[in-house]
Amino acid sequence: MTNPFAPGRVIRVGVLGLGGRGMGHAYLLSAMPDVRVTAVCDNYGTRAVDAAQHLQEKFGTRPEPYTDADEMLKAGGFDAVAIITSWQTHMRLAIKALRAGYPVGMEIGAGQSLLECQDLVRTSEETGLPVMPFENCCYGEVETAILHMIQKGMFGTILHCGGGYEHELFDEIGNGDVTHHYRQPHFFHRNAELYPTHEMGPIAKYIGINRGNRILTVSSIASKAVGLSEWLHKNRPELGDVNVREGDVVTSMLTCANGETITLMHKCTLPCCYSRQGRVDGTKGLWMENGNLIYLAGITPIPEGVWDHPPEPAAPYYERYRHPLWKAYEEYRNSVTAGAHGGMDYLVDRAWIHSLQNRIAPPLDVYDAVTWMAITVLSEQSVAMGGMPQAMPDFTNGAWLTRGPAEGPFALDTLPE
Amino acid sequence: MTNPFAPGRVIRVGVLGLGGRGMGHAYLLSAMPDVRVTAVCDNYGTRAVDAAQHLQEKFGTRPEPYTDADEMLKAGGFDAVAIITSWQTHMRLAIKALRAGYPVGMEIGAGQSLLECQDLVRTSEETGLPVMPFENCCYGEVETAILHMIQKGMFGTILHCGGGYEHELFDEIGNGDVTHHYRQPHFFHRNAELYPTHEMGPIAKYIGINRGNRILTVSSIASKAVGLSEWLHKNRPELGDVNVREGDVVTSMLTCANGETITLMHKCTLPCCYSRQGRVDGTKGLWMENGNLIYLAGITPIPEGVWDHPPEPAAPYYERYRHPLWKAYEEYRNSVTAGAHGGMDYLVDRAWIHSLQNRIAPPLDVYDAVTWMAITVLSEQSVAMGGMPQAMPDFTNGAWLTRGPAEGPFALDTLPE
Repeated sequence: MTNPFAPGRVIRVGVLGLGGRGMGHAYLLSAMPDVRVTAVCDNYGTRAVDAAQHLQEKFGTRPEPYTDADEMLKAGGFDAVAIITSWQTHMRLAIKALRAGYPVGMEIGAGQSLLECQDLVRTSEETGLPVMPFENCCYGEVETAILHMIQKGMFGTILHCGGGYEHELFDEIGNGDVTHHYRQPHFFHRNAELYPTHEMGPIAKYIGINRGNRILTVSSIASKAVGLSEWLHKNRPELGDVNVREGDVVTSMLTCANGETITLMHKCTLPCCYSRQGRVDGTKGLWMENGNLIYLAGITPIPEGVWDHPPEPAAPYYERYRHPLWKAYEEYRNSVTAGAHGGMDYLVDRAWIHSLQNRIAPPLDVYDAVTWMAITVLSEQSVAMGGMPQAMPDFTNGAWLTRGPAEGPFALDTLPE
Repeated sequence: MTNPFAPGRVIRVGVLGLGGRGMGHAYLLSAMPDVRVTAVCDNYGTRAVDAAQHLQEKFGTRPEPYTDADEMLKAGGFDAVAIITSWQTHMRLAIKALRAGYPVGMEIGAGQSLLECQDLVRTSEETGLPVMPFENCCYGEVETAILHMIQKGMFGTILHCGGGYEHELFDEIGNGDVTHHYRQPHFFHRNAELYPTHEMGPIAKYIGINRGNRILTVSSIASKAVGLSEWLHKNRPELGDVNVREGDVVTSMLTCANGETITLMHKCTLPCCYSRQGRVDGTKGLWMENGNLIYLAGITPIPEGVWDHPPEPAAPYYERYRHPLWKAYEEYRNSVTAGAHGGMDYLVDRAWIHSLQNRIAPPLDVYDAVTWMAITVLSEQSVAMGGMPQAMPDFTNGAWLTRGPAEGPFALDTLPE
């Protein structure tokens, strides 16, 4: 593998959204020798001027600060736009950016409507400009090792994948009205699989979603909502009786065109351990993120006199089957500051920059973005309808049947040479 | 707790079904000082006479052997009937036994039809004779410890429970036509959650199903069927192309009247570790059987500088919160041979005998049996209808709203004194 991290032509980026996550991307991008953040924008208070000052202090050049996205897009001075705002504004800002002539990288989360998903796809197709979702977990160290093993055939035919977003977020959600965090209104007004993308992104790569496979249906059920209400009563009594709509545990089942099934769990309002609950079941074995356990038929040793085939620790396999991209990255980062989230933030941002530099389609694309985000919309409909399965639109209009793998060193659809 | 294992009045039992599992019950029951197995029946070959001889050799008295259930029921000479036959005959034989005037204990598994479930309930109600399902896992060492912790409030309000039956059964299913094993035709002709009771029994006790709570809906999806077909091609080529209908992984979602959700996984035709996949999510913490992990807010230590609240090993909690019934049993079994399955087989059989001796309702009853077995029927319908939720009939006709806990030392609905 030639070094995919070698600097290329300079890409100038305008950043929309400067909360914690937006600043994370702004720093990561600014630290790349071939990237300049030339414009920053946030409509909350002094975030933009503060960000411009911080970036100047750290990296030497001052991006132009804006408090209005339209103004920033009109003024220009960049080659691409990174959108890291709120769940309900990612897509509408992406559509504006595409219409203004800029390729887009965007954070993703809960989708709002199928109409919006469709609009984003059509705008990208009509403008010929790409949209790449910043789903960092697609580049996770463990996720890419499992992908590697799947692509080597070690799990055989994949029948089922599981995932979840289990993250205790009382403070982030419960104080979101004070801190301008985007999650709160979704928990107060919606009842859905609000955050499927962290686990769905990697699963989509495991089973080739939108490239020879697609999601057919989503059905969801929600438990009652107790955890957040109890927390608010204790910690935010001034809010009075808030009607929390989001069930503490939302479970979804998905079916796929090639016969695989997927389950997802969303759980942010109960005390818990962080977990993306990864799971793969195939004809040759299984993997579970919880407990980091693996069982591979004919490989995992079966102790003498034991009938129940206990699993073995998965960590040595993560090491042994480290993804070639991760190996290359580890060599590279010995000489640079890698950034947060164990490097997967860096990898997803770098994949975007690489695709812009080389004018190739991004390894995660607009079809991926809307398919994953539409799960929220469909799950919301399903919960409202008592668990009725909802059809996933084919946003590719049949192209999924024959689409091949993405190209380039950051593509995840096949193993790099 | 007074000794629930003290011998009582003698109960004579007729045993219907003498496969491996039937013989297990016959031995367990015969070994009890206050139980006599006086009749045994199986319509396969010489199973009945063989069983009669074996039991005579081991316990001194020879039960009467039958090859016809109707004959055995007509001849009598016992106080109660234990039914351990095949999935598709449990209920019809139970109905016959009730009509012949005998209380019933029966093994359970896949239900066949809602009509049959209803018939069993009505026959029990009309004859005034009880039916107890032999769901041994309700008395499992781990399951009763978790029940104990739930009843002590350690998980807070329960929002979600998970369970599964993950058991590599290629030989049992694939050679079932040769060995007279009951599972095979279900895998060849049905596509359903075929074996929900091992995990659903304990979950039902965790959240009070049929006693102040009930299951409202069941929805299921099935993966494609690959594992068993591949096994048959390799190991049973003489069968030719068998049309395996049962998906390798069948996933179900259940909703409950009190707002809890349940997920179930059925997986018997892929290489895997045995697991009942127990999981409990509450407002104070969570438990996972896979990996034996637990997280209790305010109890589980959070290491310095760690953001993701890792779980801790659950095994010490199983020990510390051992169910009082298990403690009593451990003291008792020091002096006797306990039998297989870690003692839970003994406990469920003893619970049945105790209820007969004391003429009290069994701790697991006919409503439990049909509710759990109906899950198979409803999941089959749901899979056939693309995952549409199916309504669970209220077999209690509204009695669940006010039914209190079962009585006696083997009851699981409240902690024994």
